[in-house]
Parts: sequence; C-alpha cells; structure tokens
Amino acid sequence: MYKFPVLEIFGPTIQGEGMVVGRKTMFVRTAGCDYSCSWCDSAFTWDGSSKEDIKQLTADEILCRLKKDGGKSFDYVTISGGNPALFSHLDELINLLHSENVKVALETQGSRWQEWFLKIDDLTLSPKPPSSQMITNWKILDEIIGHLSSNNRLQYTSLKIVIFTNEDLTYAKKIHERFPHIPLYLQVGNEDLDEDNEERLMKKLLEKYKWLVNEVMVSSTLNSVHVLPQLHTLLWGNRRGV
Amino acid sequence: MYKFPVLEIFGPTIQGEGMVVGRKTMFVRTAGCDYSCSWCDSAFTWDGSSKEDIKQLTADEILCRLKKDGGKSFDYVTISGGNPALFSHLDELINLLHSENVKVALETQGSRWQEWFLKIDDLTLSPKPPSSQMITNWKILDEIIGHLSSNNRLQYTSLKIVIFTNEDLTYAKKIHERFPHIPLYLQVGNEDLDEDNEERLMKKLLEKYKWLVNEVMVSSTLNSVHVLPQLHTLLWGNRRGV
Ligand code: SF4
Ligand code: SF4
Repeated sequence: MYKFPVLEIFGPTIQGEGMVVGRKTMFVRTAGCDYSCSWCDSAFTWDGSSKEDIKQLTADEILCRLKKDGGKSFDYVTISGGNPALFSHLDELINLLHSENVKVALETQGSRWQEWFLKIDDLTLSPKPPSSQMITNWKILDEIIGHLSSNNRLQYTSLKIVIFTNEDLTYAKKIHERFPHIPLYLQVGNEDLDEDNEERLMKKLLEKYKWLVNEVMVSSTLNSVHVLPQLHTLLWGNRRGV
Repeated sequence: MYKFPVLEIFGPTIQGEGMVVGRKTMFVRTAGCDYSCSWCDSAFTWDGSSKEDIKQLTADEILCRLKKDGGKSFDYVTISGGNPALFSHLDELINLLHSENVKVALETQGSRWQEWFLKIDDLTLSPKPPSSQMITNWKILDEIIGHLSSNNRLQYTSLKIVIFTNEDLTYAKKIHERFPHIPLYLQVGNEDLDEDNEERLMKKLLEKYKWLVNEVMVSSTLNSVHVLPQLHTLLWGNRRGV
C-alpha cells in the first residue's frame, strides 16, 4: 500500500464552501502544493511551518483515523490540501472509502490531471484568479475538463473561484464564458487570516460578501452562478481543524 | 390566461436557503397559505396585513415584471409563498419561463400535490416541525414523494426542515428515516423576526447555527444532511424584498 502525507484529519463538521456547502463531512488534508497563492489560507500545508506534523499514512490508516474521530457519524469525506491531485495513487483511499459506502469530495486548483478524478463524487476545480499571483495553465485546465466531459462526469464537477478584487471578477467571467456548462461558485476571499477577533472578522466577511453579491447581481455575464461566503469562517473564525 | 395573486416580485438576488443556496435568482412570491406556522417569516402573505399589495397577474404580466426588474441579469426564478402549491394552473407560468430558458425553483410545505411539480427544476419540500404548531399530513407527503419518485424527479427534489427546538430535530430524524434517499437540508430558525439591529441579529443567528451544527455532528442518524443558515438574513437582516 502507498503512503500519503497527511497533515490533518478532522470532523465531523460541515463543508463551509462550494458545491456541497453545509454538507456534514470528515476532512483529510494532504501536505504539499505546487502553487503558493499570496492569500493561501492553508499555507501550513506547503510552507514548511507544520513539517513535523505531517504523517505518512496508508489508506487503511487514514480510514482507521477517520473512524476513530467520526465513529458512525459520517458518510462523506472531503479530501483537501494543499493539492491532493499531486498523488497519483490516491484512488487507493477513494476505493477504500467507497467500499465503506462513504462518498468522497475533493478540491484541487486544476493544475494536474489524475485518472481517479473520474471516481470523485463531488469534484471542485478551483483555478486561482490574478490576486493569487499564480498563472493559470489553460491548456491543462481545458484537458481536465475535456476528460471529465468525455467521461460524463460534468454533473459531479463544479468550478469555484475565490474573489478578492475586480480583476478576479473579470477572471471569473472569463472562466464562466469558457466553461458555461459547469456550475460556477464564487466565494468571498478572507483577507484577514491573522484576525483573531471573531466578531470583527465576521462583520468584515459579511461586508465583503455583500459587495460580491451586489457585483454579481448587476452582471449579465454572471447569471448561472452561486455566490457564497465561507460558512466555517463565519462560525469558527480563523481556527484550524474545525 | 389565469391570474395569480402575487405579493412581491424582486431580484436579482441570491437564494439564501436550501438546495441551491447562493444561487442568483429572481423571486416571485404568491399570496395565501393553508398553514399558519407560529414562526412564519412571511406571515404577510396570509394574515391580511398586506392585502392591498396583492396584484392579480397573468403569467405574461409576471414575466414582464421580472424582465423589467431583472433585465438580462437572470436565468433562474424562485417561486415562493405563502404556499404556491395552492394554484393548480401555475404551469402556465412555469412553461412560459422555460420557453425563455429560465429555470424554475419552487418551495412548498408539502400539503398539496400538483401535477406541475414534475416540471420544477429544483423543488423544495419543507414540512413543518412541531414548533410551528402545524400537523404534518403524512399520507399526502408520502403521496407527493411517491409521485416524484415514480416520475424520476427525486434528483430535482430536496427536503428542508427549519429547526428551532430539540423536538424539531427529532422530527427531522423521523423525516430522514422515512425518506432516506432525498437530500435533507436543516436550517436554523430565526426567532427574532422583529429585531432591527442587524449586528445583534447576525450574532444570534450564528450562535443558533453553531448549536444546530454541533447537534447534527454528533448524531449518527443525521449523516447524509446539509446544515445551513439563512444567508439573506445574515446579509440583510429582517428586511423584505432583498
Ligand atoms: S492552490 Fe490552494 S493550497 Fe495551494 S497555495 Fe493556492 S490556496 Fe494554498
Ligand atoms: S407554510 Fe410557510 S408561508 Fe405558510 S405559514 Fe408556514 S412558514 Fe408561513
């Protein structure tokens, strides 16, 4: 069995973002990312700051940890990162979870294709807009969406863009025009990753959310879209592992 | 053409609740309800207080009003009430919207069947828990879900329960055990319909949401569920028409 670098296993909690927002789920967070977004809220997965917390675990060991924490109170696991698409053998974990009747969601920025994307029950592709300082590789993104499409997986796929600026909104429009048939989720970015006053954070996030909603409402390019805040940040602020 | 009693047409805004939470949509709110829930947040649709605002409109007139407000910035309309399932000829409106490539969502408590339920793109059945003081007619609810199931419409259907009390949670578990294959959305009830201090309201709603999330997380009956707040109340408080 292969081993995967795991930084966190936690839950059950709710999915705070995107296509299954509010869904009861466990989380498995893998270490490592091929990006380094300026506003990354999981920089500890790749910047070395949590290196000593990384555990090399097999699929069996991950399932065992999930059951230890979640007992019988879960039927859904979200694999997050970092970028979990770095691991070509992750289907060992996906298959094992499916054999236990557990559904699997996964989020990746869309910089790598993996054959096991076809097995993910709810796949979120989250390309990064200009404010991240990352450059989208359109060829790879087109290929990923092409593979998903030709395997009839688009109904299990969504696009999510985190929005900080007006340039990010322009990028989101470009994405929507390029892939009009894939549900698009726009999410308010969190600019205050160090804010530990939860009330102040909550107010700022809702103000920012209001701005994004208003921008989208007047756009005739962005009709078939969802606009969402991060529910877990509204609930628990910038804390990790909730 | 038939006429329908309409109380409000507004948008574009976001859907604040349930299966398509965050979706950009226009709203059409019909007048009249066969229920009188103790905590109804749309009591003006049935308690006579907004009687003089009701307009009798044809489907054509409703579409015209939607276009006047929404321009080219919408492709989705949510029909809400009151109980829009009181109107047997509502398919005139649904067909007209579909002919304009507009999707249609509708919410009803599940006290009446209408043949046009089969045409709704996203149908929310929202039976009312004990705190509402209403009594669920299980025979009718079973029939509605039976019809939807035998017509292959369950993938377009969800159940939503507003939760105020522990008894409501018990009711939600009963619903989930009775209809395990229909996605279940649990929503925090708003106890402060008269609160006009938005910050105080926001804090209370998030506290209540935290309570509900925590209750659901430890339950092994409630696994395949979504737990959500009302996003529009977090954004705009108790204001109408947003
Ligand atoms: S892709 Fe995701 S995990 Fe990687 S740096 Fe960007 S935000 Fe962080
Ligand atoms: S069913 Fe809905 S509209 Fe009717 S009284 Fe209850 S909450 Fe109000």
